[in-house]
Amino acid sequence: MSEFESLEKSLESHLPEAELREVKRILFGKETQKLDLPAGAVDAASEHSFELKGCRFEAAQEQLRPPRRVRVGLIQHQIVLPTDAPILDQITAMHSRIGEMVEVAAMCGVNIVCFQETWTMPFAFCTREKEPWTEFAESADEGSTTRFCQELAKKYNMVVVSPILERDELHGTLWNTAVVISNSGNVLGKSRKNHIPRIGDFNESTYYMEGDSGHSVFQTQFGKIAVNICYGRHHPLNWFMYSMNGAEVIFNPSATVGALSEPMWPIEARNAAIANHCYTCAINRVGTRLFQTDLLTLAAHHDFGHFYGSSYVAAPDGSRTPGLSRTRDGLLVVEMDLNLNRQISDRWSFKMTGRYAEYAEELTKAVRPDFNPKIVKE
Amino acid sequence: MSEFESLEKSLESHLPEAELREVKRILFGKETQKLDLPAGAVDAASEHSFELKGCRFEAAQEQLRPPRRVRVGLIQHQIVLPTDAPILDQITAMHSRIGEMVEVAAMCGVNIVCFQETWTMPFAFCTREKEPWTEFAESADEGSTTRFCQELAKKYNMVVVSPILERDELHGTLWNTAVVISNSGNVLGKSRKNHIPRIGDFNESTYYMEGDSGHSVFQTQFGKIAVNICYGRHHPLNWFMYSMNGAEVIFNPSATVGALSEPMWPIEARNAAIANHCYTCAINRVGTRLFQTDLLTLAAHHDFGHFYGSSYVAAPDGSRTPGLSRTRDGLLVVEMDLNLNRQISDRWSFKMTGRYAEYAEELTKAVRPDFNPKIVKE
Repeated sequence: MSEFESLEKSLESHLPEAELREVKRILFGKETQKLDLPAGAVDAASEHSFELKGCRFEAAQEQLRPPRRVRVGLIQHQIVLPTDAPILDQITAMHSRIGEMVEVAAMCGVNIVCFQETWTMPFAFCTREKEPWTEFAESADEGSTTRFCQELAKKYNMVVVSPILERDELHGTLWNTAVVISNSGNVLGKSRKNHIPRIGDFNESTYYMEGDSGHSVFQTQFGKIAVNICYGRHHPLNWFMYSMNGAEVIFNPSATVGALSEPMWPIEARNAAIANHCYTCAINRVGTRLFQTDLLTLAAHHDFGHFYGSSYVAAPDGSRTPGLSRTRDGLLVVEMDLNLNRQISDRWSFKMTGRYAEYAEELTKAVRPDFNPKIVKE
Repeated sequence: MSEFESLEKSLESHLPEAELREVKRILFGKETQKLDLPAGAVDAASEHSFELKGCRFEAAQEQLRPPRRVRVGLIQHQIVLPTDAPILDQITAMHSRIGEMVEVAAMCGVNIVCFQETWTMPFAFCTREKEPWTEFAESADEGSTTRFCQELAKKYNMVVVSPILERDELHGTLWNTAVVISNSGNVLGKSRKNHIPRIGDFNESTYYMEGDSGHSVFQTQFGKIAVNICYGRHHPLNWFMYSMNGAEVIFNPSATVGALSEPMWPIEARNAAIANHCYTCAINRVGTRLFQTDLLTLAAHHDFGHFYGSSYVAAPDGSRTPGLSRTRDGLLVVEMDLNLNRQISDRWSFKMTGRYAEYAEELTKAVRPDFNPKIVKE
């Protein structure tokens, strides 16, 4: 069977209008408005064969604060060259593809763009082989990919979140890292993957350790952002701590396949937006990765299934955008008014009703080896 | 417009079979099996005009442990008499209705049954009036409702979770409390609502305070259970701490209306099942509550919208049952193999990859008045 293209398309093709409205309300919350994008951008996306979608979240007009409207771009894409092409060619081809897509993002007025996890390479960690994959690792501060992103940032006055495989020469370590580049072109900092999967073919602890950058939040000209990489989305405390540090938008660049996680995908980032009164942006790559190199000794680890895209943005009021396609490269442009975060927080008050001091105490006890769980017996 | 009956029914009526399969996989995860229920039960439900649905979650067969199959019953219902009927009549009518439904649950082999939040009364807290509503409060240990549930528990060898408005005569307080009654008929203990809403018409802090019973887990003959009442479902830490104390099934008896929370409903309990490697059971009442008593001074607080039912169970593998209807009384009978919890935990390892010791430290700092959030500036 060919890959199913998208949930939204299927619903829209078959449900009668009145029912579709109710189904969408229950599934997606308050309807997101369509964001009109310039014709030139639409044409360019079509010419370069990628999906382009625009959505808008609105907030109420306040008396004392002007709206804080920001445009965020999420990019999902396949790899460009086969996985056995020379490494530099693979990276260069990916730079070139992203260059095309970011140009369209700029035409759409995007202020902050985020790419998928380790975007410059195939998601080869499933192979469990180190070579040649670790050769894709680059310095977060001065690697060619960071330099490439700095050029984009300056050219388009855009904050760029660039998740790569990082090589820290100073300490002799590899990390799974998002580099955050200011619209000035300066590297603002980096956010390392806090939680590392050990599941199925995704045994990434073979390659890098749990991140040491904590829950940094980056103050950009367009708002306070944070990056929760991939498997960290399964950990509600991870989202929570970024929010406690003030994040208004949390990006979740990911690489995950259908059989493993697809029914969880629409749940976790959206739950985080609700629970933390912020926007969350879930980005997943697309395509089926085939590894043809003869370094692969296990036939079973030749095909790791289909990365299902479906990138989306969730808002603090529980609503969400439609997803990008499950199969195609795509750019999702979302205009969000950051004032909505505080409006929803004032309405739902999770931060005030959260009893965090009690949880800090309970958790401190619970992690001790002599923890005595509170179990009532007859 | 009449109330929309259910998402599942709409999808099943309109989508072609192959697409329906994909849509359901993405929305609901691995398909839950239908649980065959005795014809006598089906007839009795039909005679008593309530929906009866049976589902089954399976786990893999292990070599060293036998399956631990438990049947759980979720009951959602409308109030029986008008809200201005004599209080004792209202309570008695509700007992009688629940008696009918629990009898059917017993015919279906249910081991643990859970009712909706403050099930013996209309959800009158929206009125903001104390009288006559506080008269519905009863002793958790020896009130007439607890005695009624103890009889059910003994008669049917069933654990009964009975969420009521509790009056603690000893301390002169009211609480929103779930009474947990063992299948022996003894009161095993109580779980008080940990997080109290202050939103829209749901300003329940007028009536009772945040619970003081922490995150107790109850060891029953059929498994370790916990009760996270209503608004606590918005707080991931609340689910988490019940899980840290060993809960295998967490009930979430609720009372919530469409305009406020419906798009969050399928997200939060399910996210908790995923994040904590356990089963979660979300129960919401049905019906539109009309308050006709002349104690109501504000016309705007006469009708609080439609309680949308849609009770469901989510499993640790991210799958979930279909929901009960949005409009009708219903009993959802779910057979679950509790072995699935550890199987999924061994597979996904959130408890091992959770870095809880770090979070305990970070949270301890974050709740201090002099907390300095980690914000990186250019």
